[in-house]
Amino acid sequence: MAGRPTDPLNFEHITLGQKVLFGAGRAADFLATEVSGEGARRVMVIAGGRETELARQVTRQIDVQVWHDEVVMHVPVDVAERARTIAREEKIDLVVCVGGGSTVGLAKAVALTDKLPIVAVPTTYAGSEATNVWGLTSNDRKTTGIDDAVLPRTVIYDSDLTLSLPVDLSVASGLNGIAHCVDSMWAPKADPINAALALEGIRALSGGLPLIVQEPTGRRGRDLALYGAYLAAVSFASAGSGIHHKICHTLGGTFDLPHAQTHAVVLPYVLAFNGAHAPEAERRMAEAFGADTALAGLNRLRAEVGAPLRLSDYGFDVGDVVEAARIALEIIPASNPRPVTVGSLSDLLVAATLGDAPESISPEN
Amino acid sequence: MAGRPTDPLNFEHITLGQKVLFGAGRAADFLATEVSGEGARRVMVIAGGRETELARQVTRQIDVQVWHDEVVMHVPVDVAERARTIAREEKIDLVVCVGGGSTVGLAKAVALTDKLPIVAVPTTYAGSEATNVWGLTSNDRKTTGIDDAVLPRTVIYDSDLTLSLPVDLSVASGLNGIAHCVDSMWAPKADPINAALALEGIRALSGGLPLIVQEPTGRRGRDLALYGAYLAAVSFASAGSGIHHKICHTLGGTFDLPHAQTHAVVLPYVLAFNGAHAPEAERRMAEAFGADTALAGLNRLRAEVGAPLRLSDYGFDVGDVVEAARIALEIIPASNPRPVTVGSLSDLLVAATLGDAPESISPEN
Repeated sequence: MAGRPTDPLNFEHITLGQKVLFGAGRAADFLATEVSGEGARRVMVIAGGRETELARQVTRQIDVQVWHDEVVMHVPVDVAERARTIAREEKIDLVVCVGGGSTVGLAKAVALTDKLPIVAVPTTYAGSEATNVWGLTSNDRKTTGIDDAVLPRTVIYDSDLTLSLPVDLSVASGLNGIAHCVDSMWAPKADPINAALALEGIRALSGGLPLIVQEPTGRRGRDLALYGAYLAAVSFASAGSGIHHKICHTLGGTFDLPHAQTHAVVLPYVLAFNGAHAPEAERRMAEAFGADTALAGLNRLRAEVGAPLRLSDYGFDVGDVVEAARIALEIIPASNPRPVTVGSLSDLLVAATLGDAPESISPEN
Repeated sequence: MAGRPTDPLNFEHITLGQKVLFGAGRAADFLATEVSGEGARRVMVIAGGRETELARQVTRQIDVQVWHDEVVMHVPVDVAERARTIAREEKIDLVVCVGGGSTVGLAKAVALTDKLPIVAVPTTYAGSEATNVWGLTSNDRKTTGIDDAVLPRTVIYDSDLTLSLPVDLSVASGLNGIAHCVDSMWAPKADPINAALALEGIRALSGGLPLIVQEPTGRRGRDLALYGAYLAAVSFASAGSGIHHKICHTLGGTFDLPHAQTHAVVLPYVLAFNGAHAPEAERRMAEAFGADTALAGLNRLRAEVGAPLRLSDYGFDVGDVVEAARIALEIIPASNPRPVTVGSLSDLLVAATLGDAPESISPEN
């Protein structure tokens, strides 16, 4: 676990090589320079739906060989195959994707088989652009894998492209990013480098999200949230899923609770649950939130952005708690700093269901 | 400049892809796994002088095709050529280097021309293993360049291999690492990602160096210092040289002052000089030092490790100050948060020469 001062430093950390360009209003300039720097002559632009217009603006300084707009969630195999065929027929030498997770996912599917470099221009906080994870869906079955060939060579972050993300979606997605950062502190592959990046992510997101609520078109909040979402993706991809994500995965998968709201409700209870057992992580997260404790910092942020308060608002009931605890317990990693039992996990879930103060969870096992 | 809260986020950050394995006493195990994972069959080990015995231990679980021990400072071209020839003749498919900067430098020279992967096992805090910078010397003239082919694919950090580094050398080298971290906060390519890594480096080095002084054979201090030195190299390689390194470069190059001691003396004066003009960087460095101000934290550390106090102890005289200031001024980057003049730089150098309290430097220009 990261940061316990007396721990020996034992870890494996894989840093993925990537160029990140960051600047509000600068995407078109950045992209022109990258396309020229790569010596690319036949560019395929992937962008679908509402991102098509953004993509037109972003690509206005480059020659585009092919526009491709068939973007589908979870990247069905036949959708991927059509994009690959076009890339081959048109002798594409660079893929530019403008959009969120599904758009990056399709670009990755092309890169996986055809080894084409990707320049990614994210318009959401999904974070897929910062990982070497690919995913494809066939007959409702999702296959994922890891391959450095799918890691975008360059990512262009221009927060002006996120101005059209509605405030509530920005906040939900940003809180999800904070959950990624927090879980990176004690996930199975937690290490001090992940922790340093995750803490920087907490700092940026907790600073940015209230600004977005106060002034939705202001650049500073959008800048900070986009930057924080990038760091959340980097640290989470490296550290893996911790207790928080396993609980939320159970609540979403078995009990059909909504993804973003579930994350937002559960996180403070996880902080309260682990805090006393991970004092160094707690102290450093408190610093990053700019608060006396990590929990106080998160609660202040949640109040500022109007985060949801209890699972019961989404149809979850205290009667479901023990079953959920039993299912989650099987997948919660052994790396968790506090040992987890059905009893202690049920306490956590009851409090989260009813919206009780997170501090009410017993720090004892 | 990094971290000023009202700054827009505008930066380019290139992350170098590399695997880092960290664990005291684990180098031999790590190396065996890496050699096997790479599918390497003909390994060349580069290690010279006092590192030969360490290299024997580290490589005890692998088959070694060639031992190469001709390691020379600054990598003369003829030395590089001999190593390359052997690598070709012996059909080497992986280079393992065990040692400090010169040893890594020779491995990089081989990788530059022959595109062989490197597994680096550092035994000092030089940091070259974390960069894509190579250097060669011919007729006393040093050529340097940047090429991703020379970046070691894997770095194995085993702090047991640094136990034979004398305490005074460890401290001097560690303070040099802190200087790299501090300068990364305002160097020409400073960005918030460099800053996050540099701050983690300050945290680790300022925690580790006093432990090395207290207990030279203790693992915790050696672990922290080695980890911090790695982060110092990563952040400095990305951010470039700031005011501190330009001043020290002048004092070393023109006035022949000793490298490590010069860095150790000058750094608090640079902190005092820039601090009020970079309040966010100052605040975050203070946090990393665990002190009220960055300067207070550095001064406490300097007292704990017995750092040198004044340039006059190394033959520098107040009569040299104005000339040094004029030379340094020409190379100090415009990115420095406080505008620099011959007058203000002279104030800094007079104080550093005499060992006056760094706080005595005027924060006004």
